[in-house]
Amino acid sequence: MTLSPDHPLKDGRTAQSPLITAYRGGRPNQHPIWFMRQAGRSLPEYRAAREGYGMLESCLKPELAAEITLQPVRRHGVDAGIFFSDIVIPLKLAGVGVDIVPGVGPVLEKPIRTPDDVAALPRIDDAIFAPIREAVRIAVEELGTTPLIGFAGAPFTVAAYMVEGRPSRDHLGPRTMMHGDPATWQALMEWTADASGRFLRAQIEAGASAGQLFDSWAGSLGLEDYRRSAAPYSSRALDHVRDLGAPLVHFGTGTSELLGAMYEVGVDAVGVDYRLPIQEANRRLGGRVVLQGNIDPALLAAPWNVLEAHVREIVRQGASAPGHVINLGHGVPPETDPGVLTRLVELVHSI
Amino acid sequence: MTLSPDHPLKDGRTAQSPLITAYRGGRPNQHPIWFMRQAGRSLPEYRAAREGYGMLESCLKPELAAEITLQPVRRHGVDAGIFFSDIVIPLKLAGVGVDIVPGVGPVLEKPIRTPDDVAALPRIDDAIFAPIREAVRIAVEELGTTPLIGFAGAPFTVAAYMVEGRPSRDHLGPRTMMHGDPATWQALMEWTADASGRFLRAQIEAGASAGQLFDSWAGSLGLEDYRRSAAPYSSRALDHVRDLGAPLVHFGTGTSELLGAMYEVGVDAVGVDYRLPIQEANRRLGGRVVLQGNIDPALLAAPWNVLEAHVREIVRQGASAPGHVINLGHGVPPETDPGVLTRLVELVHSI
Repeated sequence: MTLSPDHPLKDGRTAQSPLITAYRGGRPNQHPIWFMRQAGRSLPEYRAAREGYGMLESCLKPELAAEITLQPVRRHGVDAGIFFSDIVIPLKLAGVGVDIVPGVGPVLEKPIRTPDDVAALPRIDDAIFAPIREAVRIAVEELGTTPLIGFAGAPFTVAAYMVEGRPSRDHLGPRTMMHGDPATWQALMEWTADASGRFLRAQIEAGASAGQLFDSWAGSLGLEDYRRSAAPYSSRALDHVRDLGAPLVHFGTGTSELLGAMYEVGVDAVGVDYRLPIQEANRRLGGRVVLQGNIDPALLAAPWNVLEAHVREIVRQGASAPGHVINLGHGVPPETDPGVLTRLVELVHSI
Repeated sequence: MTLSPDHPLKDGRTAQSPLITAYRGGRPNQHPIWFMRQAGRSLPEYRAAREGYGMLESCLKPELAAEITLQPVRRHGVDAGIFFSDIVIPLKLAGVGVDIVPGVGPVLEKPIRTPDDVAALPRIDDAIFAPIREAVRIAVEELGTTPLIGFAGAPFTVAAYMVEGRPSRDHLGPRTMMHGDPATWQALMEWTADASGRFLRAQIEAGASAGQLFDSWAGSLGLEDYRRSAAPYSSRALDHVRDLGAPLVHFGTGTSELLGAMYEVGVDAVGVDYRLPIQEANRRLGGRVVLQGNIDPALLAAPWNVLEAHVREIVRQGASAPGHVINLGHGVPPETDPGVLTRLVELVHSI
């Protein structure tokens, strides 16, 4: 696709922002910071806006999704909005029976376990993403020179929900399938990669300035399984957006053994889980990869002096990488005091 | 304590068994194998025996706990019994309000979060372990020359339940406490270490031939946090049993970054999670540590030829370590076909 004249990547609306500068390996004039799950339950204005709407319903109301996306940017002064949506939205829009059950997570009407189940998955028409494009357009207009990050679920994590039919701790179903029935696994992962890739493309085409692939459950895989049965499909998902030129970020939890393989799917930056020090992640990646992370979410509830020392150390360690975007090493816990997040942004911008 | 003349470690009842030989770094005449959670829901005879009894209630009825311990040894011909109990049994026996809620896990009546909560924890009198000793004695008598493995929860994992009051995914409460209120954390971990240590001592004194410390949630910690805030207390728990001379094993999930530190608490063998190849674990531990593991539980439901190839590769890799006990790299999933486990034991014994 050719970028239209008013495309944000074309006109460079956000190109000089600290976030995009850092993702591209430059040295911005302030340390950029945003928080995974910043648009969410930690904010009273989020809980108010969501009242009466189910999770997926909220994602599909463009005005509401844009408003929720903007809330943490207004409140905290973070360096990016992260689009408010969910990794199962492409399934929902494609007509797969799925809902987010409060206190549980994504639940499918019918798990996808057999070759016939996979063959029966709907074809995806880009037109289904119209409400996503609309929400992004509204958010981007208000964000101005602050970049919006689009996102999608990595195929392994999305497929884990599809095979189990619901959240699980060990993801045995998908892990059995990748070994026991590799042909069905491949077909499922190709479908999921294309669904996630098109979802991300819709967001970037509509104005998102960067894209993050979330592989929440990748840490349940050993390196060999990850390389063979997950990474190629993450790469395929990103193939849908590479021509758009937006910087790409890859994050998963418990992935300290997988960082190199996660970089090799073809991204500009790698998000680091809270368990691995930034300087060690940088060493493992050969000192050549932009990093994002990795404040321990558990410390958001600790006394300020403990949290401050932790964050200063992370900023210090990040200076050794070719670029560093400060973030959490996992999502914002719902019970977080939002005042702490605002104060963290001020601290990081003051360093 | 002096070992009594009829103590199993004294009379060497199990000293020549393949399991104990391997734990001590010798080369037994057959590859020893047992399964974490082998005494459990995968067995119809277990489900029948448990009928009408709550989980903790079952653990505290000596005849029943012994029977459940023996079931998988009779059925599968594994090289060890693992004592049927639960890591929160010491809390229950000490008078802490705790129960195992089906489908949820350990739930405390009142989470332990403040210095006063910790100070109010009951003193532990060794007499409370009488039903544990009795169950072990019954099981050991039937086991004959087959060793019984005693076990206890590592202090971090037990304390994680105590602080959260129930299972959680990220263990934010205990991880906040270890940084935010280190004095309370230390007091809680010392109490928990002594509870687990005495629980394990009761089992070994009554006839268990080895002891395994389970740190299910250790993988939620980075190496620095693990070394500072968890490992010293695991070592303290094991200090309660070192004089008994039984081989000690240490296992946790998601611990590939922690293996060296887990060994250094002072054990004879380290259990390896399914994510890390045995030969890589052996390399990280300098080729000097007996290993246990690490069949991927997800493959128990795969076609036999896939599982067989996987297990043969693990046995092959284990030959490079100074000793190798074959096991799963996590517990038996409840839905496992027990026939597959029996066949696995036959396979491993035939290699």
